[in-house]
Amino acid sequence: MVELSAPDAQAPSREADSPRDSLVVRFGPDRPLKLDAGVELSPFQVAYKTYGALNADRSNAVLICHALTGDQHAASENPVTRKPGWWETLVGPGKPIDTERYFVICPNVIGACLGTSGPASINAKTGQPWGLEFPVITIRDMVRAQAMLLDELQIDSLFAVAGGSMGGMQVLQWAASYPQRVYAALPIACSTRHSAQNIAFHEVGRQAVMADPEWRGGRYLVEGTNPRRGLAVARMGAHITYLSDAALHRKFGRKFQDRESVTFSFDADFEVESYLRHQGSTFVDRFDANSYLYLTRAMDYFDLAADYSGAVANAFKGAETRFCVVSFTSDWLFPTSDSRAIVHALNAAGARVSFAEIVTDKGHDAFLLEEPELFAIVRGFLEGAARSRGLAPASSAPASSAPARK
Amino acid sequence: MVELSAPDAQAPSREADSPRDSLVVRFGPDRPLKLDAGVELSPFQVAYKTYGALNADRSNAVLICHALTGDQHAASENPVTRKPGWWETLVGPGKPIDTERYFVICPNVIGACLGTSGPASINAKTGQPWGLEFPVITIRDMVRAQAMLLDELQIDSLFAVAGGSMGGMQVLQWAASYPQRVYAALPIACSTRHSAQNIAFHEVGRQAVMADPEWRGGRYLVEGTNPRRGLAVARMGAHITYLSDAALHRKFGRKFQDRESVTFSFDADFEVESYLRHQGSTFVDRFDANSYLYLTRAMDYFDLAADYSGAVANAFKGAETRFCVVSFTSDWLFPTSDSRAIVHALNAAGARVSFAEIVTDKGHDAFLLEEPELFAIVRGFLEGAARSRGLAPASSAPASSAPARK
Repeated sequence: MVELSAPDAQAPSREADSPRDSLVVRFGPDRPLKLDAGVELSPFQVAYKTYGALNADRSNAVLICHALTGDQHAASENPVTRKPGWWETLVGPGKPIDTERYFVICPNVIGACLGTSGPASINAKTGQPWGLEFPVITIRDMVRAQAMLLDELQIDSLFAVAGGSMGGMQVLQWAASYPQRVYAALPIACSTRHSAQNIAFHEVGRQAVMADPEWRGGRYLVEGTNPRRGLAVARMGAHITYLSDAALHRKFGRKFQDRESVTFSFDADFEVESYLRHQGSTFVDRFDANSYLYLTRAMDYFDLAADYSGAVANAFKGAETRFCVVSFTSDWLFPTSDSRAIVHALNAAGARVSFAEIVTDKGHDAFLLEEPELFAIVRGFLEGAARSRGLAPASSAPASSAPARK
Repeated sequence: MVELSAPDAQAPSREADSPRDSLVVRFGPDRPLKLDAGVELSPFQVAYKTYGALNADRSNAVLICHALTGDQHAASENPVTRKPGWWETLVGPGKPIDTERYFVICPNVIGACLGTSGPASINAKTGQPWGLEFPVITIRDMVRAQAMLLDELQIDSLFAVAGGSMGGMQVLQWAASYPQRVYAALPIACSTRHSAQNIAFHEVGRQAVMADPEWRGGRYLVEGTNPRRGLAVARMGAHITYLSDAALHRKFGRKFQDRESVTFSFDADFEVESYLRHQGSTFVDRFDANSYLYLTRAMDYFDLAADYSGAVANAFKGAETRFCVVSFTSDWLFPTSDSRAIVHALNAAGARVSFAEIVTDKGHDAFLLEEPELFAIVRGFLEGAARSRGLAPASSAPASSAPARK
């Protein structure tokens, strides 16, 4: 069985409304979030992190969109896990997304569990955690909330918006919903619509959570239980899809875990089993099970063509945004064919687009890992766009510091 | 949540020791099964089905080895599900494995739950179902039990042995363990060793079963519970791996299930979700959860190279068996590269081998489906082997009928 660390039922929910080391904007009853589901979320809040400083023109803002299990801690230590930020490979001083040059904003998405309103947040009407009463949200809803955050920060236009996986979906939605506000867009390892196979994998994960009796119809926070085992199983299954057959073979193969041979038991004889169990058990310490349901659902629902009269190209018609689309050869969750489809739609819309397929065996997770070719592409693309936009190079000091409203 | 049909906790276990519509050989205390785990299983029994008639020379026997969730009902209605046999596409009168010509034997494997001894069987020492007290078994143990069955049936030599997936592993093991007893071997969609990714998928399935509180440490049959939800989740996840991205796209795409658009809920909005839930809920009606653990474990443990001094070729040294190896282009569970590795090992061993990679989008499950090219290849290979062996063509009537000992 999954070896779970000491139970701590409140760990994710503690962060749900009062996140550590984050900025928070609270939107009152006068500023509801209009959701695709046809309802309004109000009041609600968005937690975010910033890195670097906004320049005097307010023209150097880069929005980072996180993936399914990511958060706002892109480039600094995560206060829950005490691990480095999830995109420190790419974001920081002197890094490809250079925080000495750009003002980086990374919000926690709507539906998540690290400070932005989600199912683990308190429903003001009941004084209790939302649970499944929280409305089902979409990628477009995430982006709408981010746009309201930028309004609050008085940032009319983003120099760039970047993200991988679910973050890449948000990038595409940003360019579609607010073309005038996005100068450059970097959708990485993503797609314009979630595939049947990906919906299927998500559904298995959701069923694993819901099959856990401690899930209690989503009311586990109220009832003091925690569907840790179900969520761990969901994470284990999903984690396989983030890697590749080749990477698993290279990293683990059939190596044994602290033993010389098989034990004729259901222990974790193989390293890969031990690794997966660890992935499952650490994930449940930092993530809310209902958030997992909501965010996977948002990805399932993502379908730009359906939202724009049957053709993705319609979403980008007349776009001035310049795009850089990136895929990885061994990514079977969002294969290169998905990225090519984005490029074809952008071409059909007459948009400016460059495309790179990076050769790697690291699978979907390559966008989070040490991938020098990715770093070079992102750096080069942003430098070119910055020159076009007339953004000062990193050497000149920014003129104003970041707004930090609470 | 998975919509489970009416609970019937005893359905699989009812078949465990008294299978309907099957023949059974019981091996008493004088004939124990020597297991790789270093222990003996005794008494034990093997349930099997036969089709066609054994000829006077006893030279026309074809052994069919089933896959993980298969059974002995290869070519006739399954008495539990009332569905056609799982390989009726390939096995039957006039079919590529022609029961008018060959005497087909299909045993239920050791560890399974349809009449051959497994964890749902009664442990003679305690009078209760084995549960996790059943010894962990291997592919080689399955094959040993089959060899004992053939001894009992007085069949010294098999004209052919055929199977896909876990069945293909048994075929390879047959050729390795009993080269003199196998004239022709047809390993389909399989591998000489389970990959890290495949072990990982199996481990997720096992964790899903074990996370179900009704599993009760494997004692659910004694305690009157049934880990249906956990097993359903395991099946759903595994089922995705049996198909392909392309097949799921072709069959389901993003089609909605009995609705015009998304419902902003966690219902099965998409057809692919509904399909998967159905796969999960019907599986638990016919399969024992502990058997699922044991058979996945046996596959994980399969590693011919490790068993034969580090090189698969050693397993087949001096083999007279003729092989036909088959893979499918869209099979990502046992990709063509795995079959090529089998072929290379057979070449290195100087064995006679032909190889076919069949172009299909149906994924791993293609070996169970309507694949005319597979049918043509199996028919052609067996006809050629039959001519070499001097087996009479189908038109001449067989000389003796099948032994049917109980």
